[in-house]
Amino acid sequence: MTELRIAVLGVGMMGAFHAAALSSRIRGARVTVVNDFFPEKAAEVAASVGARAVADPFEAIRAEDVDAVLIATPGRAHDEQVNACLDRGIPVLCEKPLTTDIASSYAIVQKEARLGRPLIQVGFMRRFDAEYVALKKLITDGALGNPLVVHCTHRNPTVPDFFNSEFMIRDSVVHEVDVARFLLDEEITSVQVLKGVATKAAPAGTSDPMIVVFETESGRIVTDEIYVRTGVAYEVRTEVVGESGSATIGLDQNLVVKTTDGRWGGSLTPGFVQRFGAAYDVELQRWVDAARRGTVDGPGAWDGYAAVAVCEAGVEAVRTGQKVRVAMEARP
Amino acid sequence: MTELRIAVLGVGMMGAFHAAALSSRIRGARVTVVNDFFPEKAAEVAASVGARAVADPFEAIRAEDVDAVLIATPGRAHDEQVNACLDRGIPVLCEKPLTTDIASSYAIVQKEARLGRPLIQVGFMRRFDAEYVALKKLITDGALGNPLVVHCTHRNPTVPDFFNSEFMIRDSVVHEVDVARFLLDEEITSVQVLKGVATKAAPAGTSDPMIVVFETESGRIVTDEIYVRTGVAYEVRTEVVGESGSATIGLDQNLVVKTTDGRWGGSLTPGFVQRFGAAYDVELQRWVDAARRGTVDGPGAWDGYAAVAVCEAGVEAVRTGQKVRVAMEARP
Amino acid sequence: MTELRIAVLGVGMMGAFHAAALSSRIRGARVTVVNDFFPEKAAEVAASVGARAVADPFEAIRAEDVDAVLIATPGRAHDEQVNACLDRGIPVLCEKPLTTDIASSYAIVQKEARLGRPLIQVGFMRRFDAEYVALKKLITDGALGNPLVVHCTHRNPTVPDFFNSEFMIRDSVVHEVDVARFLLDEEITSVQVLKGVATKAAPAGTSDPMIVVFETESGRIVTDEIYVRTGVAYEVRTEVVGESGSATIGLDQNLVVKTTDGRWGGSLTPGFVQRFGAAYDVELQRWVDAARRGTVDGPGAWDGYAAVAVCEAGVEAVRTGQKVRVAMEARP
Amino acid sequence: MTELRIAVLGVGMMGAFHAAALSSRIRGARVTVVNDFFPEKAAEVAASVGARAVADPFEAIRAEDVDAVLIATPGRAHDEQVNACLDRGIPVLCEKPLTTDIASSYAIVQKEARLGRPLIQVGFMRRFDAEYVALKKLITDGALGNPLVVHCTHRNPTVPDFFNSEFMIRDSVVHEVDVARFLLDEEITSVQVLKGVATKAAPAGTSDPMIVVFETESGRIVTDEIYVRTGVAYEVRTEVVGESGSATIGLDQNLVVKTTDGRWGGSLTPGFVQRFGAAYDVELQRWVDAARRGTVDGPGAWDGYAAVAVCEAGVEAVRTGQKVRVAMEARP
Repeated sequence: MTELRIAVLGVGMMGAFHAAALSSRIRGARVTVVNDFFPEKAAEVAASVGARAVADPFEAIRAEDVDAVLIATPGRAHDEQVNACLDRGIPVLCEKPLTTDIASSYAIVQKEARLGRPLIQVGFMRRFDAEYVALKKLITDGALGNPLVVHCTHRNPTVPDFFNSEFMIRDSVVHEVDVARFLLDEEITSVQVLKGVATKAAPAGTSDPMIVVFETESGRIVTDEIYVRTGVAYEVRTEVVGESGSATIGLDQNLVVKTTDGRWGGSLTPGFVQRFGAAYDVELQRWVDAARRGTVDGPGAWDGYAAVAVCEAGVEAVRTGQKVRVAMEARP
Repeated sequence: MTELRIAVLGVGMMGAFHAAALSSRIRGARVTVVNDFFPEKAAEVAASVGARAVADPFEAIRAEDVDAVLIATPGRAHDEQVNACLDRGIPVLCEKPLTTDIASSYAIVQKEARLGRPLIQVGFMRRFDAEYVALKKLITDGALGNPLVVHCTHRNPTVPDFFNSEFMIRDSVVHEVDVARFLLDEEITSVQVLKGVATKAAPAGTSDPMIVVFETESGRIVTDEIYVRTGVAYEVRTEVVGESGSATIGLDQNLVVKTTDGRWGGSLTPGFVQRFGAAYDVELQRWVDAARRGTVDGPGAWDGYAAVAVCEAGVEAVRTGQKVRVAMEARP
Repeated sequence: MTELRIAVLGVGMMGAFHAAALSSRIRGARVTVVNDFFPEKAAEVAASVGARAVADPFEAIRAEDVDAVLIATPGRAHDEQVNACLDRGIPVLCEKPLTTDIASSYAIVQKEARLGRPLIQVGFMRRFDAEYVALKKLITDGALGNPLVVHCTHRNPTVPDFFNSEFMIRDSVVHEVDVARFLLDEEITSVQVLKGVATKAAPAGTSDPMIVVFETESGRIVTDEIYVRTGVAYEVRTEVVGESGSATIGLDQNLVVKTTDGRWGGSLTPGFVQRFGAAYDVELQRWVDAARRGTVDGPGAWDGYAAVAVCEAGVEAVRTGQKVRVAMEARP
Repeated sequence: MTELRIAVLGVGMMGAFHAAALSSRIRGARVTVVNDFFPEKAAEVAASVGARAVADPFEAIRAEDVDAVLIATPGRAHDEQVNACLDRGIPVLCEKPLTTDIASSYAIVQKEARLGRPLIQVGFMRRFDAEYVALKKLITDGALGNPLVVHCTHRNPTVPDFFNSEFMIRDSVVHEVDVARFLLDEEITSVQVLKGVATKAAPAGTSDPMIVVFETESGRIVTDEIYVRTGVAYEVRTEVVGESGSATIGLDQNLVVKTTDGRWGGSLTPGFVQRFGAAYDVELQRWVDAARRGTVDGPGAWDGYAAVAVCEAGVEAVRTGQKVRVAMEARP
């Protein structure tokens, strides 16, 4: 098959990163159409990758020279755009969240199921990160015995002020939701959020850090420290504690420097591009390869729906201070 | 002053370890009297350290050739024995718990306060461990900013079957209770216990592992994973997450070996003697030095009482599944 | 420009790895011709990447549907093949060694210089490894001050018996030769080889391990432990010790596992594919990108020549036990 | 037996450290006499430990209230002082070097041998360090197979200007000489010193860093980087590379801090007291315990002599640039 022709919708930081990757590092694909809410932005990125800019995202989705769509627009735009892709029957890689509410996500799950073939991949790039893959393999191989507890840490050095407690759940904790589901291979059934003393770097009313506790179908416990204004670095670590061993990833310690301040250590990755840049490329390459074969090779609509459902419960847990059960429909 | 003459009550593993230390590595002290529930055990240890065995613990406490008492008997015996030391007005180092219930612990706090001088030290040896001391100093020096969250891990490779969920709180979590109070310099106000899937190595009805969550007076959160049948090793780690940095101790990684199974790594400390042996010696030396000066240089009766009060709430939290407030009287 | 059409000469392990990469992960290139000493091998790899097999390497080099050549044949074949590429004026990526003797390597340097444009890249893939790049950047940024000493370690778990002392120099130490030149940006002027007790896994007459010591133009010292039958894993580490700091790479410690044998640690990378697989891909992508722009973006003919010259001195040092000066011609 | 009464000769930094330890942390000993070249210094330390100051070291050695002697005077004073202890037949712990030349050291070895009982211990404290003990045990237990190569690193942050190349051999490398002999249990037979680019922090004529290479009786190779003006910290690391595994100590990584400069890591030990303070105490306690039993429990006169002989060869290697054979007499 010839190259996959891709429309990129939304070329903010994430979309522009993907457009550049698809044009320089990914084999078998080509960006033909770029769309953004800001036409100048679309024009600029389109020019840089040899594509044309299109003002209307739905025109982009329906364009003749488009075989597949990458959606990196704001979450509230996802519902209509993903549905348009399904209507045309072309593959779509949608950055998380799948949509911004449970009902619309589930409707997409059902619609894709009725089509009878997978078209949707959701952008949980950690599933393509070498360390998470190795951790998953340890579990699958039984090297840790039955996993009993998972401890997650998700820290950012700094975020804009609109990252309030609810946004932290939807935008950051959502990754740990998918990681827990991926590693444990079962659904999350309840969420509890513990709010302690907030850093003075947080705006009034925002609980940063928070401790989020998930329970799974089989009763396992997942803890997640979410702290997005550490002032330090981008730290994403996961420890799985099993019946016969434990394993930790994200230690970020391959280059050790000793300096004249009498310290040993190294630089922590400053952001997600440095930490997960390679995972994004693997994600894209495998998405492109699968799309050319007419299939999907990554987390799908159901994973996107599950994440939305858990985060919705998480937001209610933030609001109420209670342990909240996750409401999920049956998998079609 | 001449050597401090010490009666050791209870020479099970811990008491025998202390008696040997006082007779070979600690300066300025001498064991003169040994007591144990089992006379042969007392006779054996007494012989090994050049002391005499005494059948009645209260006779030992009142003996003319005894200046100070080290109590390593089972917890239920502590109340009467500590009170007898207070009655005679001599220094006592009491292994945790101070007593087995809140009321008797608080009565001891009050009685010592009425005496007007400190006589009681409780055996929280971690306060003398070089790593905990360094971690405390980092906090005190402001290197981490205001501490917001503390994560503790306490794992044993194996324990006897009588380590049920409540015993795990009283015997193991009690150390993290003191660590949290020591590091944060404030009281714990509530306890919640999360019980997930238990390891199949645990007896029926025992939740192992558990996640214990403490809140403090100022609202900080302390998480503690207690897991005592890992089959792996003795792992005690603490991470303090502050407003401007974080720090972790207990990494146990000073000797790195690479082996023909293609692995790098090292041996984890198998038990508490290997991990905290040096801390016990520092604890004893400083207790002896302070006793000879007529004072106490370590955690006191109040710390023992606070630990009992928090653990009592913890046991109720295990039973009820609820978040339980810690009930503490005013400090005299 | 359209895709770069590549002839791959030699499809043993390395060549087949490159052919697969060029057909699945590298953008902008396509393997059109495959050649190997064994026709069946060539046919098999050609079929797997959609290319045709050609029996004569020089016919492959001159084929109309070939824009560039990747040489992964045995070292003794390189001289004629690289010269044929220069004669036709097309880009060539030649696995090390450039050639097997100093004179022929220098002749290639001169011939390319006369052509007036760079065509040759030599396959020192470590220059594209993220850790070596970060280490080089530390030096360039002055973070370590003037580098004074470099310590290298190169260990393999096992090798075939034909890896004798001289082969170890030519095949393994050659990488450290290039690493030292890359990091220090100057030539090596002498080589000394220290032979100690050999592992009993080594055939008679083979000194394994050896300690190789290089001196550079400015007088810096580079030590290299080469040990290729450790039975352990693939370990490649480099430490740069500077006037104001030191740095180490190759620690291989991102995933830490704790197991029921009471150990902590992780798996070491078993071989060069696991350790340098990503570096090979970066090398290829940058070679392809540069070739399409008509240039070279990596170590060139001079670097290949310098490595041959230093290794020749190293082999003499093995034979004589003396410190041997490196004889190098002037750079054209 | 009653407490061992000790004369401390020389109370510069090291001697004063020992005097304080013997008076506060070591059991079974008491400093009764203090001597120093500077009477005020002797008086000050004597007062702090409850001893009396004596102006003449030989009067101190012969004093009635002295059972054993600790020598921490400058090296050139050791010969006469150790001989005086032998003459009186009392135990002596002598800081390295045993003496400053081969002949006098060997004379002491012979004299002690004629006395028929061990009296001399030399202050190689690393043999009492927990990490070196663990490393030695790994070797003895066969966990690494036959040791083939040992790599040592000895770095100081800063030293006085009189630390020239020869002094670096005698004062610093001497420790690695003993470590190599201790770990490998055999004698060193030759020394070679490689001098590269010196740090600009070094005085003119001083080669800092240097790479020292030892060969042993069985042909093993020991490399030692000695670099005493790093500006960084006190770094002492040793790696043993064996036939079936390797092991490294001195990693100094138990407390990990993450800070707002985006770095992970920790403080390196600033000096030898922080790194080897505990080893010094173990050394003293075991020396005292052994002396009270009439024996020696540590490196003896022969080890002191061997170190002097190897360092003498090392100094000649510095001067001549040649590989120098170590000249040693037969062990009596």
